[in-house]
Amino acid sequence: MNTIQGKNIHELMISIGKDARDAARVLAITTAEIKNKAILAIAKAIRRNQAMIQNANEKDLAQAKQKGLSAAFMDRLLLDNNRIEAMAKGLEAIAELNDPIGTTLATIKRPNGLKIIRVRIPIGVIGVIYESRPNVTTDAAGLCLKSGNAVILRGGSESFHSSSAIMAAIHEGLHTATLPKAAIQMIPTSDRTAVSEMLSMDKYIDVLIPRGSQQLIEYISANTRIPLFKHAAGLCHTYIHEAADLDMAKNLVHNAKMRRTGICGATEILLIDQAIVSSHLPTIIEDLHNAGCEIRGDEPVVKLDSRVKLASEQDYKTEFLDAIIAIKVINDLASAIEHIVSHGSHHTEAIITEDKAAAERFLKEIDSAIVMHNASTQFADGGEFGMGAEMGIATGKLHARGPVGVEQLTTFKYLVYGNGQVRP
Amino acid sequence: MNTIQGKNIHELMISIGKDARDAARVLAITTAEIKNKAILAIAKAIRRNQAMIQNANEKDLAQAKQKGLSAAFMDRLLLDNNRIEAMAKGLEAIAELNDPIGTTLATIKRPNGLKIIRVRIPIGVIGVIYESRPNVTTDAAGLCLKSGNAVILRGGSESFHSSSAIMAAIHEGLHTATLPKAAIQMIPTSDRTAVSEMLSMDKYIDVLIPRGSQQLIEYISANTRIPLFKHAAGLCHTYIHEAADLDMAKNLVHNAKMRRTGICGATEILLIDQAIVSSHLPTIIEDLHNAGCEIRGDEPVVKLDSRVKLASEQDYKTEFLDAIIAIKVINDLASAIEHIVSHGSHHTEAIITEDKAAAERFLKEIDSAIVMHNASTQFADGGEFGMGAEMGIATGKLHARGPVGVEQLTTFKYLVYGNGQVRP
Repeated sequence: MNTIQGKNIHELMISIGKDARDAARVLAITTAEIKNKAILAIAKAIRRNQAMIQNANEKDLAQAKQKGLSAAFMDRLLLDNNRIEAMAKGLEAIAELNDPIGTTLATIKRPNGLKIIRVRIPIGVIGVIYESRPNVTTDAAGLCLKSGNAVILRGGSESFHSSSAIMAAIHEGLHTATLPKAAIQMIPTSDRTAVSEMLSMDKYIDVLIPRGSQQLIEYISANTRIPLFKHAAGLCHTYIHEAADLDMAKNLVHNAKMRRTGICGATEILLIDQAIVSSHLPTIIEDLHNAGCEIRGDEPVVKLDSRVKLASEQDYKTEFLDAIIAIKVINDLASAIEHIVSHGSHHTEAIITEDKAAAERFLKEIDSAIVMHNASTQFADGGEFGMGAEMGIATGKLHARGPVGVEQLTTFKYLVYGNGQVRP
Repeated sequence: MNTIQGKNIHELMISIGKDARDAARVLAITTAEIKNKAILAIAKAIRRNQAMIQNANEKDLAQAKQKGLSAAFMDRLLLDNNRIEAMAKGLEAIAELNDPIGTTLATIKRPNGLKIIRVRIPIGVIGVIYESRPNVTTDAAGLCLKSGNAVILRGGSESFHSSSAIMAAIHEGLHTATLPKAAIQMIPTSDRTAVSEMLSMDKYIDVLIPRGSQQLIEYISANTRIPLFKHAAGLCHTYIHEAADLDMAKNLVHNAKMRRTGICGATEILLIDQAIVSSHLPTIIEDLHNAGCEIRGDEPVVKLDSRVKLASEQDYKTEFLDAIIAIKVINDLASAIEHIVSHGSHHTEAIITEDKAAAERFLKEIDSAIVMHNASTQFADGGEFGMGAEMGIATGKLHARGPVGVEQLTTFKYLVYGNGQVRP
């Protein structure tokens, strides 16, 4: 049996869970001032410990190289000066946000004199399971602290040294504000059994946020009773309606697809009304092609341009996360809605049109977390929504939907004020 | 293999799921007027079909008697004239509620000109699994319809005939308003494999609401990936603080414990400060005893009154749902909070005190769905909160917490209005 500091992994995880619960009780009644003091102290400590963090990061990079991990993976793992500064700046931005805790969400006055207040409170203990990016450590720490939650972090085993060095800075910051160390814990082992233990800790963890590959998220969904804020997929659609302005359509599609191809808000599928295929599509294909985008399409699209490859049915269900787009010609607005409802992932979809009624129908009938009119799907982002930092985009229907910012990391309770009322 | 109308149970359930999804799309864009028309037509049909419903109910009662089910069970199953009238009245009250759908929850204007609106929408498809009370059928139908959700109902096998007769009335009502029959479906078999099929339908059911015994709820929690609005337990505490008014304490404890002992908001555990044991407790014990309540207590309570039985540790963790109370003498406010946090079920807790600072600390530090000052825990009820009808009290932390009324059966999406913005 694997042991850490004389404990087996099960005992270790339970003690982490109990410590988190205790810390959560402290955080729930900690003032905004103290929480911000801690967040700013963490930012300072990140900057002060930059050399230590980068030394640790070099160890991780060397190991990753030895393992033959991909260049993309190595890039996500890398903590250069800019990224460390961005981590510190991100924390400072979180400190600037309004404190969500204690806000009155509703007041109900009853005829019997009872006063009922619905008030915003922290959720309690958040578990975050993520893969390679070590900067998730400070984002998660900052957002959970701001929202009054304790957090248990499980970083990727490949970023273990980097995350441990970042955790040292985080604990310095908590100490400065005299907050319990257990407010932000990282699982101190890269042993994978710690993850399965974590998934069984529904008594100690109120919500789990998995961040990483579809495979990771699917594995977690299948193996835990803990509620999840999860991101199923980002199969985003842009639909060019027959009343679309050509220039706007070209610019929006270009941005939605090509600005950054690897993010979940990138458009993967382009739908276009039959009526404007000949007037609009050639310009759009030309633009995408010039930008280096591989274009797949159904027969009418292939006929239009020899550089277009024939799309398979699977292409219309694929989150490429790459410079590839699948184009489909459809009959009308109703067919666009039908296609998105049957193929989409409930993340973000956009309509491009000058026809307001068509836009309203699209926005009403498409049940995705985010639906847009004449905007780039790449705006699907907590920062762009004015929420500050975020912990990803949730595609589930309950509690957190869309960007998961500090508000989404809270819940509520009812305070009932009486003066001796009994129920008849 | 069991078959219904030529389909095996698996095929049957998938077709119910698909029909529910289609109906949910219709309901999501149905006006308040049409939804209310359907709800009121169902109420009328319930009254008109009273004889048919009661005939069906007699079949269920006869079968239950044959099976030797308890008197309490038979009582929950019974649909007398009053209860049928109450079902119709309940529906009329739901029609009176404000329509929650389409409400703007937040508006965000961004410096780039994007306008982001967070708007309330239905969840989609709700599954309700319940036991004997046939009136849950109309409550669930009315609440889900009002909130624009399709619902799949799985009633107890013992109330199968009653629920089927009620469903006939429900479908009359849907027909009157030209809404799809699949908006409200009941699983047309009492075969228990239908339940396990239902639990695996995460593609078709967005949230499951189990209503019934702890055993049922535990079974469902352990066997589904579908998110639950569930009621873990109602181990409610009333705490008499040293600054409590004796008369108020006596009245509140009497009501909280004895008004109805079988509901989840009934107080099960009474905590009292050591400082007022001799001044307050004898009167309270006398009153409870006279009301027919069995009193269990720790040693100081036993010493006070020979009619008190010595409580076991287990008593302080037991939801009696009966005329039994467990009393514990504690040191002070901090000990009361500690006891509730470590023993409670996060449902409803009350403090009785004239000391506002003590009350505020209790309300702040106790993390239950409902925390009360100088009020009876029996007020933990959607109707008493002004929400109209409810589908029980949720004790989880996410999305729905406390009474599950029409608002809790909704979620939201973001509408983003642009005029060609691209993300830099």
